[in-house]
Amino acid sequence: MTKIGIVGLGLIGGSLGLDFRVQGIEVVGVSRRQTTCDTALIQGVVDKASTELSILTDTEIVFICTPLAAIAPTLEAMLPYLNSQTVVTDVGSVKVPIVEACSTLWPNFVGGHPMAGTAQQGVEAAQTNLFQQAAYVLTPTTSTSPDAVKQVEQIGQLLGSNIYTCSPEIHDAAVAWISHLPVMVSAALIEACINQEEREVLNLAKNLASSGFRDTSRVGGGNVELGLMMAKYNRQQLLSSLEQYSQSLDKIITQIKQENWHNLKKILQSTQQVRPDFLN
Amino acid sequence: MTKIGIVGLGLIGGSLGLDFRVQGIEVVGVSRRQTTCDTALIQGVVDKASTELSILTDTEIVFICTPLAAIAPTLEAMLPYLNSQTVVTDVGSVKVPIVEACSTLWPNFVGGHPMAGTAQQGVEAAQTNLFQQAAYVLTPTTSTSPDAVKQVEQIGQLLGSNIYTCSPEIHDAAVAWISHLPVMVSAALIEACINQEEREVLNLAKNLASSGFRDTSRVGGGNVELGLMMAKYNRQQLLSSLEQYSQSLDKIITQIKQENWHNLKKILQSTQQVRPDFLN
Repeated sequence: MTKIGIVGLGLIGGSLGLDFRVQGIEVVGVSRRQTTCDTALIQGVVDKASTELSILTDTEIVFICTPLAAIAPTLEAMLPYLNSQTVVTDVGSVKVPIVEACSTLWPNFVGGHPMAGTAQQGVEAAQTNLFQQAAYVLTPTTSTSPDAVKQVEQIGQLLGSNIYTCSPEIHDAAVAWISHLPVMVSAALIEACINQEEREVLNLAKNLASSGFRDTSRVGGGNVELGLMMAKYNRQQLLSSLEQYSQSLDKIITQIKQENWHNLKKILQSTQQVRPDFLN
Repeated sequence: MTKIGIVGLGLIGGSLGLDFRVQGIEVVGVSRRQTTCDTALIQGVVDKASTELSILTDTEIVFICTPLAAIAPTLEAMLPYLNSQTVVTDVGSVKVPIVEACSTLWPNFVGGHPMAGTAQQGVEAAQTNLFQQAAYVLTPTTSTSPDAVKQVEQIGQLLGSNIYTCSPEIHDAAVAWISHLPVMVSAALIEACINQEEREVLNLAKNLASSGFRDTSRVGGGNVELGLMMAKYNRQQLLSSLEQYSQSLDKIITQIKQENWHNLKKILQSTQQVRPDFLN
């Protein structure tokens, strides 16, 4: 690998650029805004930057690091500058709609999702080794070129990530459970608290809230656009997780209503017991 | 204040003892188990310790730091050793049933809830300054002696806590929202995840889960007995919060079902905006 293109110079695109350049790979970057291109150059995340996709000519692999809605349109716009061997991959957090659209546009497209991030956004927040030890999911379909998958896999290894390979459907179902569902569950907690009507209770609650509330409400009070995108692009899987969550919640409510402390204890024992399986 | 009694030498009782002794107050402790008495003495959390409540003779104020179920029976058992001026207070996390039972038993009873803790339990985990900057709620009723309330308030100030005073009912409603509801919401998340049936999805979900899932599931995978006690002793308030939570969740589900992204955005914007009000 000697030349990589990155389209979309935010936290993820910028951090990829830093890690690639450390490896001696030439990195060309594209952003819609000239100021972002300038910052990217100053920060050293790319060797060259441009607002024009033509800069991608001669790249061996291109990472599309734009928001979800822009991934397929970006691929379509860059087609004139790709040679037939160029592998294109993305970093979107939902895979089914992206892989469907992009695989049709480009045979060497490999859906990807490096699961790393920080609370910050933007190219200014780019950092080296962001993907080290992080999960990196590749979602080839039956028609994806095995050779293209292998190339993206090698990049993931170079980043120090833990590579998982599965279908776009399995990816979207899994992230619905552990990433998108928690956002809605957590948002509903804040929404319920602020909509309760006794002012004295609400004021005291705000004062007494501590680490339990802080942690449970964190992702529900986070990035609005990200939450919206999850819901839009992973709607079916998220709805299915939400329906099953509602049932689990009802089960707990029923035990408390019926004062069935034996069953409630069994539920809390099982949640305590299995939670460590989800912690890496 | 020259002599304080502490019944129940766990994390809270032990930490209170440490802070009182630093102030030069004599502390006598009671535990059901001799080994706990011995440890308390070795750790220096009390000046004297005994398995007998008679050691409480001549104390000016007694802190009952037992689990919720033992608070009223403990007060009843210690009555023969109290003089008429002794103030009794507790540290239970639910107040209505405790204050009802204890106020009848002892006119100088003041319900209290210092909201501090660590992941550890037991007298071995006792630490100084645990209550500094922590909320400390006092829940007098109309019949509670103002003088007794003042004495407990002074102790709270001595500990460096932020004192709040309200009725037992308002306390229980507030903690239902910010402490007990999050436990059930969070437990339901884990319960829903493990009950979904596709093994490949579940296995991938376990591998991909990161900070969002970790934080949202934390209190639902915590202390089982504590979760049970919240549900048993604060059942009505918790059920009421759970019902309202269900409605908030349904509201979010409805927006996603109807693809009403405008309304979902408004909800997520409001949760993002108000969450900081709950963070101290």
